[in-house]
Amino acid sequence: MRPLILISNDDGVNAKGLHALEEIAAEFGDVVVMAPLNNLSGQSHSITGIRPLRVREERMAEGRCVYSCDGTPVDCIKMATEHFCPRPPDLVLSGINHGSNSSINVIYSGTMGAVLEATMLGFKAIGFSLLSHNPDADFEPGVPYVRHLIGQVLQKGLPEGVSLNVNIPKLPKGEIRGIRICHQSKAQWRDSFTQRIDPQGRPYWWLTGKFECNDPSTDSDEWALTNGYVSVVPVHTDLTRYDAIGKIQNLTI
Amino acid sequence: MRPLILISNDDGVNAKGLHALEEIAAEFGDVVVMAPLNNLSGQSHSITGIRPLRVREERMAEGRCVYSCDGTPVDCIKMATEHFCPRPPDLVLSGINHGSNSSINVIYSGTMGAVLEATMLGFKAIGFSLLSHNPDADFEPGVPYVRHLIGQVLQKGLPEGVSLNVNIPKLPKGEIRGIRICHQSKAQWRDSFTQRIDPQGRPYWWLTGKFECNDPSTDSDEWALTNGYVSVVPVHTDLTRYDAIGKIQNLTI
Repeated sequence: MRPLILISNDDGVNAKGLHALEEIAAEFGDVVVMAPLNNLSGQSHSITGIRPLRVREERMAEGRCVYSCDGTPVDCIKMATEHFCPRPPDLVLSGINHGSNSSINVIYSGTMGAVLEATMLGFKAIGFSLLSHNPDADFEPGVPYVRHLIGQVLQKGLPEGVSLNVNIPKLPKGEIRGIRICHQSKAQWRDSFTQRIDPQGRPYWWLTGKFECNDPSTDSDEWALTNGYVSVVPVHTDLTRYDAIGKIQNLTI
Repeated sequence: MRPLILISNDDGVNAKGLHALEEIAAEFGDVVVMAPLNNLSGQSHSITGIRPLRVREERMAEGRCVYSCDGTPVDCIKMATEHFCPRPPDLVLSGINHGSNSSINVIYSGTMGAVLEATMLGFKAIGFSLLSHNPDADFEPGVPYVRHLIGQVLQKGLPEGVSLNVNIPKLPKGEIRGIRICHQSKAQWRDSFTQRIDPQGRPYWWLTGKFECNDPSTDSDEWALTNGYVSVVPVHTDLTRYDAIGKIQNLTI
């Protein structure tokens, strides 16, 4: 039986990056896509409990089932693996995201939320992102790397509980220098909201902000991307800071 | 000058747990509250980029400013620290959540999203949750522990980049056995969506699911809570699984 590959994203079922990933995945196996109806960037690991969800068949063909769901990327992974995949997926993919999910962006990302949910459910999973927010971005230069990583993970697996956060620099064909295994850079977004005044004189705020990376490390994902490499960060869902457990024992009573 | 304590949550500005935390915090310093207008449980680290946000003054008194914001808990922390706190907060609190944020729940939790955002911005932060979803839950038995932890963290600080995920067992006064410093238990939610049929014969799905904890460890948060202790897990925002970096070097090209 061909491998089954489940795909989601956070840019929505009609995003160009999703179609690009679907085409590559179809080279390796049967494909089920379940993606949000609309763009849900920045939805992180959100789930929808306050209203029920609907699922719609978008496109069906031999070895390809594409569904949309009016929930979050995490909802899509739960729903698809439990109710819409004909068998447990051999691999779960998310993306290709329009825009970086490197560094601290991983924690805001719905694309990576889907990947982490798949990991928790026990599936091998990879999230792919291209460093371009352009809805018509050119995904071609990164395709050989996406293909390579899917093939390798299908063949060799991943350490238990580990998934991959893959970011691709925005470079023309042939200028990407290879793949680096990295850690997540230390960084944050600053000056996040800008105030405006509405026609009635009342204030409102738009999310904005500038990215500040203070990580001088040369084995970080920001370093790899700035230097023309595809960055691969092994990620997991255990937020425990183990080295702090000893340091805060004085909090006990 | 008195310490400034910023408080948020994900149950909304009118939640009983928020008021309980505000009362305890006011013993230690001036308080700014900025909380979501409505219940936003399960919103994780979501941010709002697709529409502008509004902020409303709810209650103002000497040393107490309470605002609501129509964004997520993470939006609240960004907005409050940048535009509504009269000085940088000495401590950021979130909760007291109605319901557990132990184990893997930390990753779905908007309450803990607020805590992790504060951590990224460089502030000391603690999230508190009570293991009861009752809107009228009794927070009293946990108050001495909340008070103790706030006092200790204000006095001694926390390791850099580390915040605390504190969960309180649902026990009568006097039956809580103390505080344990723990790691996050390995667990997941299964069978997440249940299908129903609408009056027109079309399917829809409600989020549900059962919690499965497979972690036999006696220094985990689930163990502590089951055995009557307040669990304190030091958490951070670096999702890198460092021990896997060496193991996946064979993915490079």
